[in-house]
Amino acid sequence: MQDSRPIGVFDSGLGGLTVVKALCDLLPNESVSYLGDTARVPYGNKSGEAVERYSLELADMLAKENAKVIVVACNTVSSVALPRLRKHYSIPIVGVIEPGARAAASATRNRHIGVIGTRATIRSGAYEKALLALKSDLRVSSRPCPLLVSLVEEGLLNDEVTDRMIARYLEPLIADGIDTLVLGCTHYPLLTGAIARVLKRQIMIVDSAQNCARAVEQLLDRKSLRAPTLNCGELQVALTDAADNFLGVARDALQLKIGKIELRPLP
Amino acid sequence: MQDSRPIGVFDSGLGGLTVVKALCDLLPNESVSYLGDTARVPYGNKSGEAVERYSLELADMLAKENAKVIVVACNTVSSVALPRLRKHYSIPIVGVIEPGARAAASATRNRHIGVIGTRATIRSGAYEKALLALKSDLRVSSRPCPLLVSLVEEGLLNDEVTDRMIARYLEPLIADGIDTLVLGCTHYPLLTGAIARVLKRQIMIVDSAQNCARAVEQLLDRKSLRAPTLNCGELQVALTDAADNFLGVARDALQLKIGKIELRPLP
Repeated sequence: MQDSRPIGVFDSGLGGLTVVKALCDLLPNESVSYLGDTARVPYGNKSGEAVERYSLELADMLAKENAKVIVVACNTVSSVALPRLRKHYSIPIVGVIEPGARAAASATRNRHIGVIGTRATIRSGAYEKALLALKSDLRVSSRPCPLLVSLVEEGLLNDEVTDRMIARYLEPLIADGIDTLVLGCTHYPLLTGAIARVLKRQIMIVDSAQNCARAVEQLLDRKSLRAPTLNCGELQVALTDAADNFLGVARDALQLKIGKIELRPLP
Repeated sequence: MQDSRPIGVFDSGLGGLTVVKALCDLLPNESVSYLGDTARVPYGNKSGEAVERYSLELADMLAKENAKVIVVACNTVSSVALPRLRKHYSIPIVGVIEPGARAAASATRNRHIGVIGTRATIRSGAYEKALLALKSDLRVSSRPCPLLVSLVEEGLLNDEVTDRMIARYLEPLIADGIDTLVLGCTHYPLLTGAIARVLKRQIMIVDSAQNCARAVEQLLDRKSLRAPTLNCGELQVALTDAADNFLGVARDALQLKIGKIELRPLP
């Protein structure tokens, strides 16, 4: 069976475009409908209740567009709102935490994994829970890195200020002895170069965007939801407010072809 | 005539507490009711339409609380939504732009003023307009400093990373030859020390929070709206979502006594 309905992807803003990039690269036949909540971005410092409420509103919009699967391209939402979303919809829902945790658990050799993300993601303990559910003998060191999102949004991807902040955030994790680092925020894949510079490549980097795209691929196969192989996937981007500075950064860094952006104000 | 109703103050989040601090210091008899939109903070990268809509919702909440004056303790809102707010309400409304512009126009000797703020504030050109309306022979150099809000929110008030970003942002303004710098964002008064370090005190710093408080004082006198002199002013703080990290930073840096915070979710 084949299914040409789009994959729905939502995020607090434009950070989830790293997941879209990974999806488009891995599944070129699939159409993607992206919805970014630029009217209320960022979610990383907001309460769990607020994040849950906003997520349901966004998922509703994608469900009404007949998405065949909903991808939560935001670690903050995945870490606090996934159970509620899964209870609410019959459409399959893929988050970024489980795929990232799975990849990290296979990658580590010394069984000690580091996780970085927003305050809300780290506070939730979602990565620890997912990792320990996979292998109970793992050690997890985690750290919120709240400034990294702003640095990425400003396009300071290769900048000494960003390198200094990364070094400061990662120092205790390196001292702890992690051998694997999960980038637990969809903005962070754009900092892979900077993070590798600081880590001096002794530590494995696990990118939750790419692992999420692989999980979507497996789900589509399992549920026979793949688009026809001759299909040429299209990307539609809708935002709840005008695009902020990050759109240009993402376009340049990800080499994503984003056409006309639809403005879809919240009720 | 005396009037013990509260002064209503609103902001996109908690940055406006610098204005509250200036109000409480200058007008200890006045009660202040503060409303911060932590559910949608920050406004600085959002569209003018979104900022206008959010501001009307917040002003409505203060008007229903019987505020005798509404203080817009946010440069972004003051720069894009003030005309609309003034048209909509009969309550007097005080913003931060006009008082800051007035203070800068009197302070400058070489008639060349620098303005820093969020992207939305600088894009609006509100300070230029206000300054040129006061004195048409002024020269204005302005620059958005989008990372400074995040650095303040993280409490990096005395930090080499913050100093470096400030130096980078201010370099072109210093090269342009400004002799006065307007801090056009309510977060920035917390960086006065850091900015003075970078400027090496050759340039006058105009703090829009303090000047806004003086404008409120003048308005209360002009309209006979002062609280009884024996009144002991109280501060009430309400937020649309849980307080973020900045609350602790503001408490420490401003030495503000903030009691129980009321959570007032948006409809």
